[in-house]
Amino acid sequence: MSHPFFTRHQALLEQATEAIATRGYWSPFVEMPSPKAYGESANADGRAAFEARLGRPFALSQPGTVGEAGQEVSPYGMALGVRYPKPDLDRLFAGVAQALPAWRKAGPEAWVGVSLEILQRLNRRSFEIAYAVMHTTGQAFMMAFQAGGPHAQDRGLEAVAYAWDEMRRIPRRALWEKPQGKNEPLRMEKQYTVVPRGVGLVIGCCTFPTWNGYPGLFASLATGNAVVVKPHPGAILPLAITVEVAREVLAEAGFDPDIVTLVANDPSEHMASTLALRPEVRLIDFTGSTANGDWLERNARQAQVFTEKAGVNQIVVDSTADFKGMVRNIAFSLALYSGQMCTAPQNIYVPKDGIETPEGRLSFDQVAAAIGEAVGKLTGDPAKAVELLGAIQNDGVVQRIAASRALGEIVVDSRALVHPEFPGARVHTPLVLKTDASDEGKIMQELFGPISFVVATEDTAHSIALARRGAKEHGALTLSAYTTDDGVADAIRDAAEDAGVALSFNLTGAVFVNQSAAFSDFHATGANPAANASLSDAAFVANRFRVVQSRSHL
Amino acid sequence: MSHPFFTRHQALLEQATEAIATRGYWSPFVEMPSPKAYGESANADGRAAFEARLGRPFALSQPGTVGEAGQEVSPYGMALGVRYPKPDLDRLFAGVAQALPAWRKAGPEAWVGVSLEILQRLNRRSFEIAYAVMHTTGQAFMMAFQAGGPHAQDRGLEAVAYAWDEMRRIPRRALWEKPQGKNEPLRMEKQYTVVPRGVGLVIGCCTFPTWNGYPGLFASLATGNAVVVKPHPGAILPLAITVEVAREVLAEAGFDPDIVTLVANDPSEHMASTLALRPEVRLIDFTGSTANGDWLERNARQAQVFTEKAGVNQIVVDSTADFKGMVRNIAFSLALYSGQMCTAPQNIYVPKDGIETPEGRLSFDQVAAAIGEAVGKLTGDPAKAVELLGAIQNDGVVQRIAASRALGEIVVDSRALVHPEFPGARVHTPLVLKTDASDEGKIMQELFGPISFVVATEDTAHSIALARRGAKEHGALTLSAYTTDDGVADAIRDAAEDAGVALSFNLTGAVFVNQSAAFSDFHATGANPAANASLSDAAFVANRFRVVQSRSHL
Repeated sequence: MSHPFFTRHQALLEQATEAIATRGYWSPFVEMPSPKAYGESANADGRAAFEARLGRPFALSQPGTVGEAGQEVSPYGMALGVRYPKPDLDRLFAGVAQALPAWRKAGPEAWVGVSLEILQRLNRRSFEIAYAVMHTTGQAFMMAFQAGGPHAQDRGLEAVAYAWDEMRRIPRRALWEKPQGKNEPLRMEKQYTVVPRGVGLVIGCCTFPTWNGYPGLFASLATGNAVVVKPHPGAILPLAITVEVAREVLAEAGFDPDIVTLVANDPSEHMASTLALRPEVRLIDFTGSTANGDWLERNARQAQVFTEKAGVNQIVVDSTADFKGMVRNIAFSLALYSGQMCTAPQNIYVPKDGIETPEGRLSFDQVAAAIGEAVGKLTGDPAKAVELLGAIQNDGVVQRIAASRALGEIVVDSRALVHPEFPGARVHTPLVLKTDASDEGKIMQELFGPISFVVATEDTAHSIALARRGAKEHGALTLSAYTTDDGVADAIRDAAEDAGVALSFNLTGAVFVNQSAAFSDFHATGANPAANASLSDAAFVANRFRVVQSRSHL
Repeated sequence: MSHPFFTRHQALLEQATEAIATRGYWSPFVEMPSPKAYGESANADGRAAFEARLGRPFALSQPGTVGEAGQEVSPYGMALGVRYPKPDLDRLFAGVAQALPAWRKAGPEAWVGVSLEILQRLNRRSFEIAYAVMHTTGQAFMMAFQAGGPHAQDRGLEAVAYAWDEMRRIPRRALWEKPQGKNEPLRMEKQYTVVPRGVGLVIGCCTFPTWNGYPGLFASLATGNAVVVKPHPGAILPLAITVEVAREVLAEAGFDPDIVTLVANDPSEHMASTLALRPEVRLIDFTGSTANGDWLERNARQAQVFTEKAGVNQIVVDSTADFKGMVRNIAFSLALYSGQMCTAPQNIYVPKDGIETPEGRLSFDQVAAAIGEAVGKLTGDPAKAVELLGAIQNDGVVQRIAASRALGEIVVDSRALVHPEFPGARVHTPLVLKTDASDEGKIMQELFGPISFVVATEDTAHSIALARRGAKEHGALTLSAYTTDDGVADAIRDAAEDAGVALSFNLTGAVFVNQSAAFSDFHATGANPAANASLSDAAFVANRFRVVQSRSHL
């Protein structure tokens, strides 16, 4: 018999499975924070729920709690004061081990049903989670709601759909009947059981804790694994709420809630590496720095390790049929959440002799200046600007802006802005520099935050060569290109396919290279150093479970 | 337009794709070396083709050849004297790099079409390959034909079917149309291109060079990668013929044949580790020792590494409804190719107080003795015995038999037999020992070759606990169980699912635990230390390619 949660969400699952196959636009979760979709009091209720968390212990019934952790400070100024359970890891993992056998035996429909119910309940908590995301990551409210709520839920659902799509193709039983000439055939009955790997560890980041955390969390959970969630110490609350919801659903479904647990830590503790080397941990999903991701890939040999690390995203500017649209679009991409998106562009390659536009040939300096002006325009009015920029997540980014000023000639400088609502907010506008390609060491490093280069190249062929090598050697999640020439477009596409980086052409309107839509865009390719996996595809889920068969004669 | 080879084999591909989904019996390649299927002169022609290889250079047009390698000696006595091209690796890999871009751009239908044509041509070479397998591995002719020919081709085809099944689910194009309330929707066209990882390295073993080599070879090739084949120095010829056929098909299809190349080496050279660390190598398929497999997993960090290593296969004997059938079946499994199958059982757990049978309760000693007698019977007539035992692949196995005599009380001793046709053949009958479970160090190590233990346990619960722990900690490809009790069967199934090992119940007839049928049996689970992958499943192929997308407004 099907699990009741599976039955409840089966239609949704079928739609999601269809969506990953056709990859058109689809989402079951409303992205606008509208009263019509979420209820008249949803915003007020969510804000109140968030505020009720502040300055208090965050209760979770999980085993082995021996103290408290948590020192989150909002990029908008205030300390959150939430204190999370701090577990003794041996006791926590003993509890997880006790919970696992019944969960393993429950099978794919139960795993998927529970996962879908969790996602539905997370959707209803989108406002509360949005405030939690805003006040940990520094995102402006609208982005915190969309990327932290419905879009993250989309990415979780996408992972569940991939998991289901792989598991459903394993038949439960088969009759194997091998002819033996004139003799009776050999007849065997075979059973195939999907089994999980064990414990999945999700290591969260401080900029998109739910959007980047949900794919791994739900991919592991939907394939029968237990999941230990280790948030970034700067962004615990959104994932703590997520764990709370997951535990509530697990218990309601008759499972031990310790299938999903939280390990919060203070910034001074190196908890991720300790957790990653535990023998129980067989899957790790990580978003963060290249150094930490590479360390996990090298050292956590007992686990399947999925990483999203740093990269250098690039734009090749060859020519355009809409110069103003191009410049506006690029500027918006640089400003959105202050360049703190793993998909934000950093290096903009423009031929030193300029480009063709409908306004005629424009020089390199004119192109750079136009991008700088567009950034200035977008950030001119602080009240509007903060809704686009959000706040800088941590002081390291502010220091990086300061240090980067020396790396080129300033096209537009970064300015500190005062947030009209949160005077303590850490708000800084983008720094845009110009330079040439002679010192690749300068431009071929990720300068995380609102820092970008307009780079003078010999010509477009040189731009493409730089983009190809940059993505291949340093990693990239996105590549953007502007050209009106089909031959150039083909050459750029070849470079992108060779370097394994997702490509956007001629974005001049309301779609930005930073954006990646679940069910349609593969986020990262896993084919260059920026990530060893894609969110989501078959490879992201197929190795999270294994199949054990038994056979006997009929 | 479809590639002509794709069109030619499309019906076969569809059947294969259906077979992996339903997992009943299916094979397109005739397993009997019958003149009706293969032609009246096929055997004579194949033998002549094999003999014409001996004592001569094996010509391959691949780049960078700087000398000769190859010192194969048949386990049946004679030196093969085949001398293979020895490449300068930098020049070889430069040639491969030159061949890759056109192959990458050819796309899934071309990759799959070429792979299927290669398999069809290998099938027509089954007799030649059978003699090559026989005189490198030591398998008897019938096994060399079946496992080295059609069954290996089945495993190759299965990998192609999995690869196709994953790649075909990536749409080439999608229209993404996102509603914008009252405004015009956002409309984008997206293209998805399947791209290979780069170069796949296949590291062959000396016992089943084609059966264990083809899955990785064809999984990589069918997903657009180039493949460098590095056979075991003791079993080069079967894979050299395979490479020759692959190159012939590639050239005929208009591709650079350097997409598939051979690196042969003498036993004194450590070629596998050198190749495995080359930056061009992004996929590695390995069959061999645990030490070498673990080394690859730890060190070849630039590659996806798929390993099949050593394990301790076990049989739990609880009770049986057919004692004679059980004993005969077990004895056959021990004798088949002298226990040199990665699936052959080693430890047979029998309760110290004996088991229930239709003949009444039989003591532990009676069970052990009956297995020993059955082995003696199977190997009593040398002329018949050699067709079952084949020859011992290398002297290390002979030495291991000698050294293992001290590990227990001898139930039946290993004897050297004189092969009636090949007086120089290295033929030894199985050694069966009995012991108790007190010294696990003795029994929980793989003793590759015709060496097995009948182990006295406290009771069946103890047997199951040993089997569970043995598979979990030391790895196992197979678990076999004899019981008439449903409760015991459930407990064994739970242990198998927990330890991630394929289980066979009550084999008393013409199916043996050693056998693994393509399209139906998953060979290895990837869930215990014996292997990190399964032949074949979605996880075996899904990470051999990546998807690169491009998008633009419509």
